[in-house]
Amino acid sequence: MTPARLIRMLPSDNVAVVANEGGLAAGTEVEGITLASHVPQAHKVALTDLARGARVIRYGVTIGTARDAIPAGTWVNEASLDMPAPPALTGLARGPDQPQPEPLTCYTFEGYRNADGSVGTRNILAITNTVHCVSGVVDHAVARIRAELLPRYPHVDDVVALDHTYGCGVAIDAPDAEIPIRTLHNIARNPNFGGATMAVSLGCEKLQPARLFPEALPDLVTLQDESHTGFEAMIASILTTAERHLIRLDQRHRETCPASDLVVGLQCGGSDALSGVTANPALGHAADLIVQAGGTVMFSEVTEVRDGIDQLVRRAASDEVAEALLSEMAWYDAYLARGQADRSANTTPGNKKGGLSNIVEKAMGSIVKSGSMPISGVVSPGRRAEQKGLLFTATPASDFICGTLQLAAGMTLHVFTTGRGTPYSLPHVPTLKLATRSDLARRWHDLMDIDAGRIITAGETIETMGQQIFETILATASGQKTCAERLGIGNQLALFNPGPVT
Amino acid sequence: MTPARLIRMLPSDNVAVVANEGGLAAGTEVEGITLASHVPQAHKVALTDLARGARVIRYGVTIGTARDAIPAGTWVNEASLDMPAPPALTGLARGPDQPQPEPLTCYTFEGYRNADGSVGTRNILAITNTVHCVSGVVDHAVARIRAELLPRYPHVDDVVALDHTYGCGVAIDAPDAEIPIRTLHNIARNPNFGGATMAVSLGCEKLQPARLFPEALPDLVTLQDESHTGFEAMIASILTTAERHLIRLDQRHRETCPASDLVVGLQCGGSDALSGVTANPALGHAADLIVQAGGTVMFSEVTEVRDGIDQLVRRAASDEVAEALLSEMAWYDAYLARGQADRSANTTPGNKKGGLSNIVEKAMGSIVKSGSMPISGVVSPGRRAEQKGLLFTATPASDFICGTLQLAAGMTLHVFTTGRGTPYSLPHVPTLKLATRSDLARRWHDLMDIDAGRIITAGETIETMGQQIFETILATASGQKTCAERLGIGNQLALFNPGPVT
Ligand SMILES: [Ca+2]
Ligand SMILES: [Ca+2]
Ligand SMILES: [Ca+2]
Ligand SMILES: [Ca+2]
Ligand SMILES: [Ca+2]
Repeated sequence: MTPARLIRMLPSDNVAVVANEGGLAAGTEVEGITLASHVPQAHKVALTDLARGARVIRYGVTIGTARDAIPAGTWVNEASLDMPAPPALTGLARGPDQPQPEPLTCYTFEGYRNADGSVGTRNILAITNTVHCVSGVVDHAVARIRAELLPRYPHVDDVVALDHTYGCGVAIDAPDAEIPIRTLHNIARNPNFGGATMAVSLGCEKLQPARLFPEALPDLVTLQDESHTGFEAMIASILTTAERHLIRLDQRHRETCPASDLVVGLQCGGSDALSGVTANPALGHAADLIVQAGGTVMFSEVTEVRDGIDQLVRRAASDEVAEALLSEMAWYDAYLARGQADRSANTTPGNKKGGLSNIVEKAMGSIVKSGSMPISGVVSPGRRAEQKGLLFTATPASDFICGTLQLAAGMTLHVFTTGRGTPYSLPHVPTLKLATRSDLARRWHDLMDIDAGRIITAGETIETMGQQIFETILATASGQKTCAERLGIGNQLALFNPGPVT
Repeated sequence: MTPARLIRMLPSDNVAVVANEGGLAAGTEVEGITLASHVPQAHKVALTDLARGARVIRYGVTIGTARDAIPAGTWVNEASLDMPAPPALTGLARGPDQPQPEPLTCYTFEGYRNADGSVGTRNILAITNTVHCVSGVVDHAVARIRAELLPRYPHVDDVVALDHTYGCGVAIDAPDAEIPIRTLHNIARNPNFGGATMAVSLGCEKLQPARLFPEALPDLVTLQDESHTGFEAMIASILTTAERHLIRLDQRHRETCPASDLVVGLQCGGSDALSGVTANPALGHAADLIVQAGGTVMFSEVTEVRDGIDQLVRRAASDEVAEALLSEMAWYDAYLARGQADRSANTTPGNKKGGLSNIVEKAMGSIVKSGSMPISGVVSPGRRAEQKGLLFTATPASDFICGTLQLAAGMTLHVFTTGRGTPYSLPHVPTLKLATRSDLARRWHDLMDIDAGRIITAGETIETMGQQIFETILATASGQKTCAERLGIGNQLALFNPGPVT
């Protein structure tokens, strides 16, 4: 039997989480305390006697106050805690300038370099739609392209339809409409699509091609075009256009690129308390390595980091970044208030079952995956990142909406940590899945790419695991297939549309 | 050459639309006036001299006022008109009680009767998801079921995944969250799915199965279930569960049902001015026949009928119905105001190109498809219709969101009119497509089921065309395939979620 073990994040914490798989039984003696009841894995235990109203501290911050007296050895969960008020968005200060990180120059990957200088990790033909009306036809055409054309172009990885439910029946001139429109625009420009934008339009939709692509129209098939007599003519137009792009894409090949050309989007979902103990800290170390190598790392999930905004502001690289962080938080506060959303609703039943008592604790565990580097930029929802380094890409925490917005921001590789397990992945970028615990990694052996639970079960440290994640990112960016790619599964886009439908 | 022809809807109208394909040339003499310029088909011509500020009247109602003086024979379009203010939602009165329509009792169709008394027009296995996270796995499973299982169950028409992007990362306790939740709940109960609800859940999502199905849990596969080791185990669980339902569904057969068991959802999209002249009035006649036969007809599209609310209230069968109509309009007014939506934005570029100057004219053309019967009920978005007759099912005008909500309301057959042409259809219910004009019907010969343009090109009347539509509805409900079913195309669900994502 493995010895009983608790994990404390910082010496100032007065709670620690149970490391052992299966949890620890009542009466277990560990680190000088005796457990008052069975405590599940990843759940918190009081390390000292806490008086009613005392601050409960994890990651060095107050995650709540004791609702009643909590004796040492007691299981601490959402029923034991009163949640603190969210930090105000005023009076927050940047920390002192940090020393520049040691640059890492020796790391490279094999990528597809584009004309605009960006580098893709896959060579995919994407077919953009201006409006959902056409997606039945486009899905049919994509199935035909996959079956009939793709086998002839072995250097093209895939053909994907950028299906969405936007484009008509929406308040296209409402203030928030720019978010879904620029999202669709920027997704079509994702480096993994090699600049090969082709689009299918209906013809009468509100989101006209010229509005979606104001600079230059993409290669366009319009279903209402008078030259189309019957369904097969529409399919033939799409196939003919697609083949032109397949020919071009097929001539591309991978070349050695510095790790500074990586654009990695980070996310967590189906989280548990081990997310903030194993996978997220290890991913944070990998994020530091990418940023030190000059690459780009995006973290997101406004509602999850909102309660740690004071920490993010301290890490801002400039006053402009600090202001941009606060501005995104304020926008989201107003958006949620307009919909009368309950802030505490972010924590899912699965989160609580996994040991996360509330959004404050979840925020700490979520932020830790961003590592320790200064935040050098902020990307508004739907915009494309225009700089390198560690970026806060402001998105909802919703896994699939966040992924869609990171795709628009230019992500070419997705890393997703999960404790409870989710099969979510994007077909547009390789999506690496990190299990927070070894039992999930064992059970979902062909769905989880990396077992970060080995920090608990196999003597790995956060640093050694972080280094392995970094190396897996480089290998995957170079063409090594992810679990989801091997299985051939993926999720569709899910746009963020804060504006009304009409 | 066909003689020049204008179509005036009512004798009190002071504009009429050009009937001729290709429009009419400048100088054409028709009905005593001379055209001042080329006027495209379906566009309006002034029948008399109109002073600046004069009311421009079509369908007997004011669709705008003349921005400048408009001489007889002038093309009247959106540049010529100032839009009237929308009718206030107070001070509107019901009309006098109408005589009960002559009952039609001789019409039947061959449908699938369900245990709850409802009747399906197709025999489909639907797989509901609680959350988008699982949809990559479910899509994969559905492809396997289609290929491996479905051929063994010849009496089952199809297997469809009820994919959506809801279920987590949403403000599930916000006031508006009940709309998407009840929509998903009621779609699973659609009569075309034979009561065979099966669902795939992740396990940790906010929208837990017990919340989605409060009365009784459906046959459920939970991906996070500890019994699932690896992806194939998840797929095997879904396939095993699906096969139980396929065996049951395969034993069903069609039986003769009265037309009163029909539940038909009406919609128009990609409209032009002929929508309100050919297809919609003919569909309105078919709607009258269905209602006279005791069946259910749903019309929708709040933003399109908003400017004709005074007419709808006059047709309300009771004070309760009138109040419910006004309450749905008021809810939507507030929803649009919250998002700062521009009311005039409903009219698409395609609408204007097709001759519809503004939302008022579009409203008149949209409402005419509901026929002339009293409105006997109102269904709020996402709710299931609980009565028969002509119902106003309050939905956005967005084609795909409206279709999704009509599906939740219990629609078993969809009729969709279009002037500009759209390939939209739902895979869950047969979707009949009516072209407003013969040139579209000719060009899209395998996408359009009925050519209502024959009212202009082949001497059909609104009544004879309406009768043909009614008979096609009965044949289609009995199993005759639609164009979209023959081609195997269809659109995904698009939920109406007025609440915030988190
Ligand atoms: Ca997260
Ligand atoms: Ca997430
Ligand atoms: Ca799909
Ligand atoms: Ca319409
Ligand atoms: Ca519509």
